Amino acid sequence: MRVLGIDPGYAIVGWGVLDYQGNRFQPAGFGAVTTKAGVPLEQRLAQVYDGVAEVLDQYRPEALSIEKLFYQHNQTTVIGVAEARGVILLAAAQRGVPLFEYTPMQVKQSVSGYGMANKKQVQEMTRILLHLDKVPKPDDTADALAMAITHCHCSRSRIQGLPIR
Amino acid sequence: MRVLGIDPGYAIVGWGVLDYQGNRFQPAGFGAVTTKAGVPLEQRLAQVYDGVAEVLDQYRPEALSIEKLFYQHNQTTVIGVAEARGVILLAAAQRGVPLFEYTPMQVKQSVSGYGMANKKQVQEMTRILLHLDKVPKPDDTADALAMAITHCHCSRSRIQGLPIR
Repeated sequence: MRVLGIDPGYAIVGWGVLDYQGNRFQPAGFGAVTTKAGVPLEQRLAQVYDGVAEVLDQYRPEALSIEKLFYQHNQTTVIGVAEARGVILLAAAQRGVPLFEYTPMQVKQSVSGYGMANKKQVQEMTRILLHLDKVPKPDDTADALAMAITHCHCSRSRIQGLPIR
Repeated sequence: MRVLGIDPGYAIVGWGVLDYQGNRFQPAGFGAVTTKAGVPLEQRLAQVYDGVAEVLDQYRPEALSIEKLFYQHNQTTVIGVAEARGVILLAAAQRGVPLFEYTPMQVKQSVSGYGMANKKQVQEMTRILLHLDKVPKPDDTADALAMAITHCHCSRSRIQGLPIR
């Protein structure tokens, strides 16, 4: 199973593609789509869309795993993040890639085995599970890989991600 | 000048195209893109994108006028509206149509001459300014036409819309 995890944003979109077979993870690729401050929002959204479309076309994942966005998120950026999330979901929908959403607590529980784990603990467990020498940078990329791990774990245990509303 | 006004959403996207010359408005077309409840969000976003792209391609407006989204909006829907707004801005960006944002108070002031006007008063003034027999339905379409009027008025008076962040 090949899964794309994404940590959405309009400045940085972290992404990570994992192959998961026989209880083992193999990273196929990971990175970040970045846009520059000062560029008009609509152009940044187009850059996010183009970047994610390129990843989808290059890696052809069977599922997209993305964080469930809550209203409680950072108030000043939630609208921009949701706008970016919109164009990311569009790129996946246009390619027929099914979407799965997970809460931050589901990610922590799934990756570290502990729902109250902190960010660093989740990143370190991500590094170990993927047999990487160090935690991928930026943080958004590490978080995206954790999203992908979560979907693999949840699919295996038949606890499916929440269907997108 | 031909302006497209849009009232964004993921269930209903109101739209209205106005030609504005010599201080007179001529509606070129108006309507709404609608999506059904129960359809997965990513498919609804794709329907919004396709519908708005069709309007942009058919009417080729010189500007897109859209409401500035605030965090104070209806808490349960703001994330979905922002996601829809993302794909609408993307469709405009891909066609090089410049975007202008206005606050609800700017719309009320511009259309009715009174920043504290209520929704019905703004809709009735929209009807009068556009020489229509009745207020267009749904409300989202009437609101979209008011957005377009606002941009025409503000461009005329050289009070430009707020540049998109």
